[in-house]
Amino acid sequence: MNENQHQAPRRISILGSTGSIGCNTLDVMAHLGGRDAFEVPAITGMGNIDLLAKQARQTGAAFAVTADPARYQDLKAALLGTGIEAGAGPAALIEAGDRDTDLLMAGIVGIAGLAPTLAAVSRGADIALANKECLVSAGELFTAAIAKGGGKLLPVDSEHNAIFQVLEEHQRHAVERIILTASGGPFRDFTREQMAAVTPEIAAAHPNWSMGLKISIDSASMFNKALEMIEARHLFGMRPEQIEVIVHPQSIIHSMVGYTDGSVLAQLGAPDMRHAIGYAIAYPRRASLPVERLDFAKLSRLDFYAPDETRFPALALARTAMQRGGLQGAALNGAKECALEAFIAGRTGFLDIADIVAAVMDKLNDGREAASIDDVYAADREARAVAETLLGQPV
Amino acid sequence: MNENQHQAPRRISILGSTGSIGCNTLDVMAHLGGRDAFEVPAITGMGNIDLLAKQARQTGAAFAVTADPARYQDLKAALLGTGIEAGAGPAALIEAGDRDTDLLMAGIVGIAGLAPTLAAVSRGADIALANKECLVSAGELFTAAIAKGGGKLLPVDSEHNAIFQVLEEHQRHAVERIILTASGGPFRDFTREQMAAVTPEIAAAHPNWSMGLKISIDSASMFNKALEMIEARHLFGMRPEQIEVIVHPQSIIHSMVGYTDGSVLAQLGAPDMRHAIGYAIAYPRRASLPVERLDFAKLSRLDFYAPDETRFPALALARTAMQRGGLQGAALNGAKECALEAFIAGRTGFLDIADIVAAVMDKLNDGREAASIDDVYAADREARAVAETLLGQPV
Repeated sequence: MNENQHQAPRRISILGSTGSIGCNTLDVMAHLGGRDAFEVPAITGMGNIDLLAKQARQTGAAFAVTADPARYQDLKAALLGTGIEAGAGPAALIEAGDRDTDLLMAGIVGIAGLAPTLAAVSRGADIALANKECLVSAGELFTAAIAKGGGKLLPVDSEHNAIFQVLEEHQRHAVERIILTASGGPFRDFTREQMAAVTPEIAAAHPNWSMGLKISIDSASMFNKALEMIEARHLFGMRPEQIEVIVHPQSIIHSMVGYTDGSVLAQLGAPDMRHAIGYAIAYPRRASLPVERLDFAKLSRLDFYAPDETRFPALALARTAMQRGGLQGAALNGAKECALEAFIAGRTGFLDIADIVAAVMDKLNDGREAASIDDVYAADREARAVAETLLGQPV
Repeated sequence: MNENQHQAPRRISILGSTGSIGCNTLDVMAHLGGRDAFEVPAITGMGNIDLLAKQARQTGAAFAVTADPARYQDLKAALLGTGIEAGAGPAALIEAGDRDTDLLMAGIVGIAGLAPTLAAVSRGADIALANKECLVSAGELFTAAIAKGGGKLLPVDSEHNAIFQVLEEHQRHAVERIILTASGGPFRDFTREQMAAVTPEIAAAHPNWSMGLKISIDSASMFNKALEMIEARHLFGMRPEQIEVIVHPQSIIHSMVGYTDGSVLAQLGAPDMRHAIGYAIAYPRRASLPVERLDFAKLSRLDFYAPDETRFPALALARTAMQRGGLQGAALNGAKECALEAFIAGRTGFLDIADIVAAVMDKLNDGREAASIDDVYAADREARAVAETLLGQPV
């Protein structure tokens, strides 16, 4: 018997199963005992039907959902004879989140992850959270729902997972600051002039982590860190001024917590998503994972420097969004998504992304709070619409 | 009311009150509420009677002891009219440890700290341990006594305190290794030829910590790290091969724990003894301490390299002592103390210290275990005697 195996099969549903979070989740689950150790009430993916169907068969999932309603027949055909139920579209996604499970891996990207994740939250499932929008766009709403649902919220971002690992629950009174580390991205040494000229291809070359195109560009602009600051605020109940960012090009220290006694606790590891994913899956018991072990003599050195907020205005925008509160997180994220897509499409420059986000945030700064998930979706749509208008204008 | 103040005064006795651990302990206690927060059943010192008496008066100690029997009348005179009881000599030291207390700060240096600390252990007091001999020379005996006494053992060495902070009690099954950091001492870049020629004055110049002469030279030879390896074995129940040493010249990462999931947790802080002392005094609740906060941008970089065991044979000797077990720790420490004193007196060279220790350990490697504290004292005396014989011979 595998030493990591749980007594009774643990039920884990996966939103975004075919993405990098999902694939790494399945890799960890296979290592920790596979079908002997885990049941999969539901998995969801996008357009890669072959992979989704293959994953469903391998895990013995009960329910497989594609977010794309047009692919329903394809998925159904791919699952023919397996006994696995197929679903498609937004309602099926929510149903996937609503299926009874012990842990939901919320690896789905974008605002579309909000409703299905909230469905699992309200059923009291533990949530392994990789989706950013749940906290950035809907922070108060989401954390209130978690408190009401009674499940544990386990962050799967390497930074927040690191903080979670070293933020001692009984020492909450003594937390002075959290220190998010940032790789600094591929442009950490670029001038603003150089940054103005970059293309999506250049921006996507992240120095340490292998990631998708959008996340890589968010890393290059440090908007990923801006989102993480807002996430940290909600995850750990921090005031904006308690959240620091330090550039640490090697990405070995995943993040830190500073206490009132001067101690700083840090979690370190090789840059590998399976650290945080494995931690969440095995929680509260650390498992044995096949990740690279750190060799400090080989690492030789770790560097740190303060981020340059003139070249990376995203960080200041995050602080503004936190200070203003309300739906400013949704405005920041919606505008950023729209501007990012425009940059990828060649419709706008790299440095324009932050300018557009700032303008949208100012325009939508009306102090409104989200009373429901619909308010969050509306704010997201409005932010994108305003950003789109700005994109249509000469900058 | 001070936010750090405990509800009822906490009783803290201090062995070695006039040394650097003792002075820092009193500094932390003054900061955390002084006499409103703490009672001092007993304090002990050596020959600095003025300071000892002053500390006793300031803390309102009930009992003050000098280890030197010849200074009894001086201490009595210095405490005249205060109502503070005076004591002197080994029996009074043990009595100081035996006085009822919540926490004993065992800051006394050398094998003389063993008996009074064990007295407090057997009364069930929590022990803040800075004395090395309790674990190096009497590891099994001491940890068994702690288990029987029922008190908590809180390490005050910065390295072990760091490990204590990040070694999660419920994850003991998942601890893969502990990584002790070492400054490398002032000779970290010396050749063996250069090391052969050094004087005690040169060896005492530690790059990061302000310490006493003997401790500084132990740092230069890395014998301090050798002792810490043996301490770590007993403190945390590690196998010898689970204990790694990495040179980290800045001494910012105080030590680390590596888990089976690949995570490494670290405690970091400015080089200041009050971190570990304050942690032990406030335990289990982190207090607010007036120590310097880390500024990672200012630190700029942290370096690491593997220790060179050819130039620093102390580390291999520690591993040998751990593998052999029994009274080899006592042999290592007793021989090292004797050779160290000979080096300070100009009777032997810096590199001879390790050669003498190795020879003494080989000679006393008879597999005997310590059945009682007397066996430990006997092994210590024997190690010193054998070392003294070797010192009298031409090397």
